Amino acid sequence: VAAGAIAKKVLAHLFSVKVRGCLTQLGPITCAIRDWSIVDSNPFFCPDPDRLEELDAFMTQLRRDEDSIGARLTVVAEGLPPGWGEPVFDRLDADIAHALMSINAVKGVEIGEGMAVVDRRGSEHRDLMTPDGFLSNNAGGVLGGISTGQPLVAHLALKPTSSITTPGKTINKEGELTDVITKGRHDPCVGIRATPIAEAMVALVLIDHALRHRGQNGHVVTQTPVIPGLAST
Amino acid sequence: VAAGAIAKKVLAHLFSVKVRGCLTQLGPITCAIRDWSIVDSNPFFCPDPDRLEELDAFMTQLRRDEDSIGARLTVVAEGLPPGWGEPVFDRLDADIAHALMSINAVKGVEIGEGMAVVDRRGSEHRDLMTPDGFLSNNAGGVLGGISTGQPLVAHLALKPTSSITTPGKTINKEGELTDVITKGRHDPCVGIRATPIAEAMVALVLIDHALRHRGQNGHVVTQTPVIPGLAST
Repeated sequence: VAAGAIAKKVLAHLFSVKVRGCLTQLGPITCAIRDWSIVDSNPFFCPDPDRLEELDAFMTQLRRDEDSIGARLTVVAEGLPPGWGEPVFDRLDADIAHALMSINAVKGVEIGEGMAVVDRRGSEHRDLMTPDGFLSNNAGGVLGGISTGQPLVAHLALKPTSSITTPGKTINKEGELTDVITKGRHDPCVGIRATPIAEAMVALVLIDHALRHRGQNGHVVTQTPVIPGLAST
Repeated sequence: VAAGAIAKKVLAHLFSVKVRGCLTQLGPITCAIRDWSIVDSNPFFCPDPDRLEELDAFMTQLRRDEDSIGARLTVVAEGLPPGWGEPVFDRLDADIAHALMSINAVKGVEIGEGMAVVDRRGSEHRDLMTPDGFLSNNAGGVLGGISTGQPLVAHLALKPTSSITTPGKTINKEGELTDVITKGRHDPCVGIRATPIAEAMVALVLIDHALRHRGQNGHVVTQTPVIPGLAST
């Protein structure tokens, strides 16, 4: 997270790239990205002011139930130029998947529409381009392993911890059946706390690719105008 | 895929690990893993004999619509011993995420329950252990970046290709608005063809970790009996 903070500063100052993360789902409660400014001022990193009370009540009940819950986080990087990444080895999306799956408890990583692409048609999913910018961002900012200039959007799913005070079956060192009960500090949703970690991981991958891109292509001049990542609607 | 075939042979002969992949969803059609033996004898790599006709009809209509569709593949590795992987850098799950996200058109990677963990409780998700084996496999065979002895289960989502014959807005080299129409060979579902690639990628990651594990821990003897990856029910 410390290195990620430096990466975020360099990305902002040198490349005008802003990396931000937030909670977008906790158990059954989904949070829309409505207001980034409240993310750091509530304990859930939640961007949706209308969900804060609900989240609080849910977590209180969960603690009473002596149980834990999963969460979905979203990291968005805005201001990315087209061209960062690699087409085959160490693709931008593959490196992000590696970095996010390296965080404890993460069981799924998505770029853009993610797993939902399974039931999408090409005519729905593809992001059309106009001189005013991309008309959508289903790709999540990466095509062919390389940034498109659209905002980078990555989602990650964190599992509910198994370390709960509700007893469960396990085996001991001798392989005999016994119960496991976790006492002491008990975090009913590790997903919430992972928000700054996910931000840091994405920032670290991006700064690596930014420097590689500058190293490889710093002298390249293209005629094609860069269009906005998203057309203003 | 060629290197993956060698990796699969070495995994089978040296470590008794079997790596198999199949189609588990195409558009709205889900395929249950009911019969591995039919996977290589139908054009969809589908493990569900009751879905073959439906898949065929869906693809015929899709071709008429001049559109494309996404797909979900599942790769399962059985016979994995506990202990393969690393706890922090180059975790087994992170390396699998990197490898699978490196395949063209992949937009999401899941291990075990994957994104569904978001709405699960710890008391539901955790895999209880008994002397007869694990009672479930929600972890998908990896905990803390290291194999558990459960079957490894990874899912990947492949997007519908944008290269369809239905015209779409784009820009030319000068940044001017124009239409894009893809002619020639047109693959309405690239996901289907990716099955052998996904298998190969998982096999390559596994053989790397198998050799690393043997190198690091080849002399280690443990007293704790290894329990079956899944208790027979």
